[in-house]
Amino acid sequence: MNTVFLRKVSSSISREFDGRQRVVIENVSPELDGGKYHAKTVEGGSLAVEADIFVDGADTVRAELCYRPEGADEWQRVPMEPIGNDRWKASFSVGTPGKYFYTVEAWPDHFLTWKKGLAKKVDAGQDVSLDLQTGALFVEGATPVASKADAGKLKKFAALMHSDDIQNAVAAGLGEELVRLMELYPDKAHASVYDKQLCVTVEQRKAGFGAWYEFFPRSWGEVPGRHGTFNDCRRLLPMVAGMGFDIIYLPPIHPIGYAKRKGRNNSLSAAPDDPGSCWAIGNRDGGHKAVHPELGTIEEFEEFVGDAECLGISVALDIAFQCSPDHPWVQEHPQWFKWRPDGTVQFAENPPKRYEDILPIDFETADWQNLWIELKSIFLFWIDRGVKIFRVDNPHTKAFPFWEWAIASIREDHPDTVFLAEAFTRPKLMARLAKAGYSQSYSYFTWRNNKNELQEYLTELTSSPLKHFMRPNFWPNTPDILHEEFHSGNRTTFIIRMVLAATLSSNYGMYGPAYELCEHVPVAEGKEEYLDSEKYEIKQWDLDRPGNIRAEITRINRIRKENPALQQTNDIAFLRIDSAPGQEHGLLMGYVKRSEDDGNIILVVVNLDPNAMQNGWLRFPLEMFRKPHDHHFAVEDLLTGNRYEWNGEWNYVEVNPHAMPAHIFRVMLS
Amino acid sequence: MNTVFLRKVSSSISREFDGRQRVVIENVSPELDGGKYHAKTVEGGSLAVEADIFVDGADTVRAELCYRPEGADEWQRVPMEPIGNDRWKASFSVGTPGKYFYTVEAWPDHFLTWKKGLAKKVDAGQDVSLDLQTGALFVEGATPVASKADAGKLKKFAALMHSDDIQNAVAAGLGEELVRLMELYPDKAHASVYDKQLCVTVEQRKAGFGAWYEFFPRSWGEVPGRHGTFNDCRRLLPMVAGMGFDIIYLPPIHPIGYAKRKGRNNSLSAAPDDPGSCWAIGNRDGGHKAVHPELGTIEEFEEFVGDAECLGISVALDIAFQCSPDHPWVQEHPQWFKWRPDGTVQFAENPPKRYEDILPIDFETADWQNLWIELKSIFLFWIDRGVKIFRVDNPHTKAFPFWEWAIASIREDHPDTVFLAEAFTRPKLMARLAKAGYSQSYSYFTWRNNKNELQEYLTELTSSPLKHFMRPNFWPNTPDILHEEFHSGNRTTFIIRMVLAATLSSNYGMYGPAYELCEHVPVAEGKEEYLDSEKYEIKQWDLDRPGNIRAEITRINRIRKENPALQQTNDIAFLRIDSAPGQEHGLLMGYVKRSEDDGNIILVVVNLDPNAMQNGWLRFPLEMFRKPHDHHFAVEDLLTGNRYEWNGEWNYVEVNPHAMPAHIFRVMLS
Repeated sequence: MNTVFLRKVSSSISREFDGRQRVVIENVSPELDGGKYHAKTVEGGSLAVEADIFVDGADTVRAELCYRPEGADEWQRVPMEPIGNDRWKASFSVGTPGKYFYTVEAWPDHFLTWKKGLAKKVDAGQDVSLDLQTGALFVEGATPVASKADAGKLKKFAALMHSDDIQNAVAAGLGEELVRLMELYPDKAHASVYDKQLCVTVEQRKAGFGAWYEFFPRSWGEVPGRHGTFNDCRRLLPMVAGMGFDIIYLPPIHPIGYAKRKGRNNSLSAAPDDPGSCWAIGNRDGGHKAVHPELGTIEEFEEFVGDAECLGISVALDIAFQCSPDHPWVQEHPQWFKWRPDGTVQFAENPPKRYEDILPIDFETADWQNLWIELKSIFLFWIDRGVKIFRVDNPHTKAFPFWEWAIASIREDHPDTVFLAEAFTRPKLMARLAKAGYSQSYSYFTWRNNKNELQEYLTELTSSPLKHFMRPNFWPNTPDILHEEFHSGNRTTFIIRMVLAATLSSNYGMYGPAYELCEHVPVAEGKEEYLDSEKYEIKQWDLDRPGNIRAEITRINRIRKENPALQQTNDIAFLRIDSAPGQEHGLLMGYVKRSEDDGNIILVVVNLDPNAMQNGWLRFPLEMFRKPHDHHFAVEDLLTGNRYEWNGEWNYVEVNPHAMPAHIFRVMLS
Repeated sequence: MNTVFLRKVSSSISREFDGRQRVVIENVSPELDGGKYHAKTVEGGSLAVEADIFVDGADTVRAELCYRPEGADEWQRVPMEPIGNDRWKASFSVGTPGKYFYTVEAWPDHFLTWKKGLAKKVDAGQDVSLDLQTGALFVEGATPVASKADAGKLKKFAALMHSDDIQNAVAAGLGEELVRLMELYPDKAHASVYDKQLCVTVEQRKAGFGAWYEFFPRSWGEVPGRHGTFNDCRRLLPMVAGMGFDIIYLPPIHPIGYAKRKGRNNSLSAAPDDPGSCWAIGNRDGGHKAVHPELGTIEEFEEFVGDAECLGISVALDIAFQCSPDHPWVQEHPQWFKWRPDGTVQFAENPPKRYEDILPIDFETADWQNLWIELKSIFLFWIDRGVKIFRVDNPHTKAFPFWEWAIASIREDHPDTVFLAEAFTRPKLMARLAKAGYSQSYSYFTWRNNKNELQEYLTELTSSPLKHFMRPNFWPNTPDILHEEFHSGNRTTFIIRMVLAATLSSNYGMYGPAYELCEHVPVAEGKEEYLDSEKYEIKQWDLDRPGNIRAEITRINRIRKENPALQQTNDIAFLRIDSAPGQEHGLLMGYVKRSEDDGNIILVVVNLDPNAMQNGWLRFPLEMFRKPHDHHFAVEDLLTGNRYEWNGEWNYVEVNPHAMPAHIFRVMLS
């Protein structure tokens, strides 16, 4: 009796070498750097896994995606399906934040191979009596591991296949019932298991979907001109919540250095009452674990965080690992800084520029272990005070190995911590930070302005391997960046860029109230820095100033919340819009996004020209949704409530920027 | 004193974790499946290695490619150069067949960072006296490890930088001499080393460049019609050598089974004098380690191999792991086969097709270890008899893990063994065999006939990761495949396909004399099988039959040997040929190949139309060779000896297939 008729059912995943494990499993995706880094998903989301799977010869293969949350011993399994060219695919759903492991198991299914051959032989009119005997042996092989009821059924099938009743035996052998039973009890004696257990990091929902609002607390004093406090800011919360933001991000809230303090408009000498840049962290009142006394106390900060949470808003802190010359560390840990031959401490430089109010940390210090522990403890300190989201300042100027270690070890105890990398730097460095564990990344969106640039950039983010680990966060402005496009002050431009940020990316943010008030004057012509930047002074904002775009922002944030299609970034398709037959429109941009189950489909059409109406013919990709080219369907503009009936794939669109520079259509295909 | 001024020179490669190793090294190429499989090169060749290398912040990075042959303890080093977008590159040369290991080391060069800053500060007119002191400390740091002479020079530099002579100190600090000295003694205290030692397999030269000639020895009896012998074949060797072939490949030379022997034209019943298919291996005279008695003895085979070697020709054997029902293994190792419920052995099937003269081996046998050892020993048996090259029949129907093990373990003792995979199957399986160790792979060339198909296929082979591990071997025909394109019998078609095979791929082969005699009659219309196939009968060939293309083959093989550009496959660029301005020519195909040092440049222009003259304008890519668009240069057609003067990039070409359907130009750029 040949071994093919022997049976050993293995439910565990073994990696012991056995030359009979003939099925090849390779090119598993996602797999980052051979499994060293992890793909990302969010709570309640899923992970789609693909692999190349094949066997020598003509055997029929079956495959399962195996997964388990960290800590669980048992693997759960989903059957994988072939999607062409020996590629297989399956997805699994995840629960709460933490880690999930996954791998792939596959085996030749000798019963199915046999069945395929039987069918062909029967079709060719060949004698199959001997084949039926062979098949019966496979069926008998499954009975010892089958349930009592199924074993009984299997035995009957085997008896029939052993009998002289060829016609009925063939019918049984080719029937659905036997396949169903045999699939319940697969013979995995020689199953192959992929040689790695890969890992996906599951993060809290706001890692995947959220609208960020950045503001400077000190500009919100109840008495105009007086330094704002956390208590003052509690007043602001309903307004921010009303606009539909999910995350409030505060620039550093720590004591600000006095030495070399910068004055208004980044001047080298500060006036006595200049508040200084809050990124010059630390003075005699403390460093990264202290609160600037004029903002209030740590307890008041905690109350502010609590109030925000009640409104569904998370407070994100800015973690900037740099020090003012007055930071306590300079005295307590001089070995964490570089010192110059004259005994003075080395300030930040980008020759010939000098940043004398800022000391960089020396990540090559011999005392690096203690440095790492202290830096990590800053995150833990604020986590203990209710903060779960951190925006990290210039992480690309700190050692990459530190981030890998710090983020992983913080997440061990606090898997719901979110890290946003503020790294406006070269592509490879940004990708590495994302692989190292950052939940989200600031992006080049700010400088992708025309249709080609935007489409190319989104395609790179959502179609390259970046899609597995780098979640972009789109910011039309920041306190550091007022893009030239805004300098004209055209209110419509502010709406266009907000629509793009909020609908292209599930994560976006703005620096307010500068944005909704359409602040647009640069410090000098052609510069990206704001005039009278809030970074160096206390501002007074009139939130109701005429021309503000708060209503538009509110509406768009509500549309985001009501439409799951906009709560993800990677499933996006750019659409053809023609200005004349065969002539692509250069200013109208269209894209479609959808929820995982196709239950929600959003079509955005943006007019990139803030000054003139544009129109054209848009091709809606009905084939993506398995509809015929002449399908009749309806779209509803969620911005205006207007509803249109569309016939077939090509449809007329026009966008008048003087009314609203975009349509956000909900597509109702049936 | 800060650690940046401390110095520890490490010449060994350490993988100990140190958080100060700030440089990131990733995306090293070639790296196959995380290093599990090896890239390939040939004796005397080289390997180009690339990696993404960068550091946090603004430090200047340096990097070295480290390599060593297996067995050597010391790493050799080549500086890597940045090629843009944080990608770095270097190459190393390899010696004799075996394995080479390689990895990458990189570090922030604080001296170069300092120098860059100094230059900018000097340009900006800043006071640099303190910077010079800092620089002096770097220079002093290098003296303890410098040669005595260099240490003296370094001390003088340091003294100058400590002095008040700022002007000369700046000149010294920015000068070439100090950089040269400092680069000799790099501070690698915090160098990063890539976390894998990757491996490249170095094979003998014929793995990378060779023309194969396949023939059936039994058709070469001195007395026409009598079974040919190895001694008869020795007569044939000067003819094959004269045509310029490097490798003679013989179909299986083993005893042929009698049971179910196939007759002429694959008929199910053989006549008493039918010789049978030599792929039905084994009878009472022996199996895979025996020689068919009618061919001669093993000693005579060895003499044949020796004669061939004297002419520079290697003899390749066909290893087909399958058995006739008469093979001794069926009795000796019944457990290596599948048995049917009626006690008969399972023959090969592809339902409803039956191959009753062939028994497949069961790679799921419980006795798989002994099976593997025996199969491997077949290679070793023939290696002991002088064979270094094996063409393996249908490797994709044998277990992949077997090939990985067998090829690796054979190469441990015999690194000059070449394996050609005859797997005409799906792309992923072919790629896996190549990764598993096969030196070369049969390819889809046979079915890539028009210009688009050929260019797309070559682009895939030479530009995708396949280029690192899969070397194609291009065969216009085989005993199994007479492509429909040949059925007309047009002699020119045979020349066209031979030129394509021989110039597109450095490895190509043909089944002769069928090919050079332009045998073209299929067994039935539309079938790819030869009529009266030599697989089932002894043929008599008249090598001098009118219309043969031996002269053309001879000429083209000589051109291949004389031009290094044609001795490699991956460096190929397809050229634009226009039939009218802006209109790409559909039948004229042009491509340029070059030797590694650009010393040899070959431009091939093929007319894919065997019946009519075609002409057009070809754009020669002068920019590839850093020549201006209006460069004046000469080309010489190596097929005719004609020489043309060309002016600039666009040039007129015409190819008259009635004379010769291709030009093979040697390009002389200066």
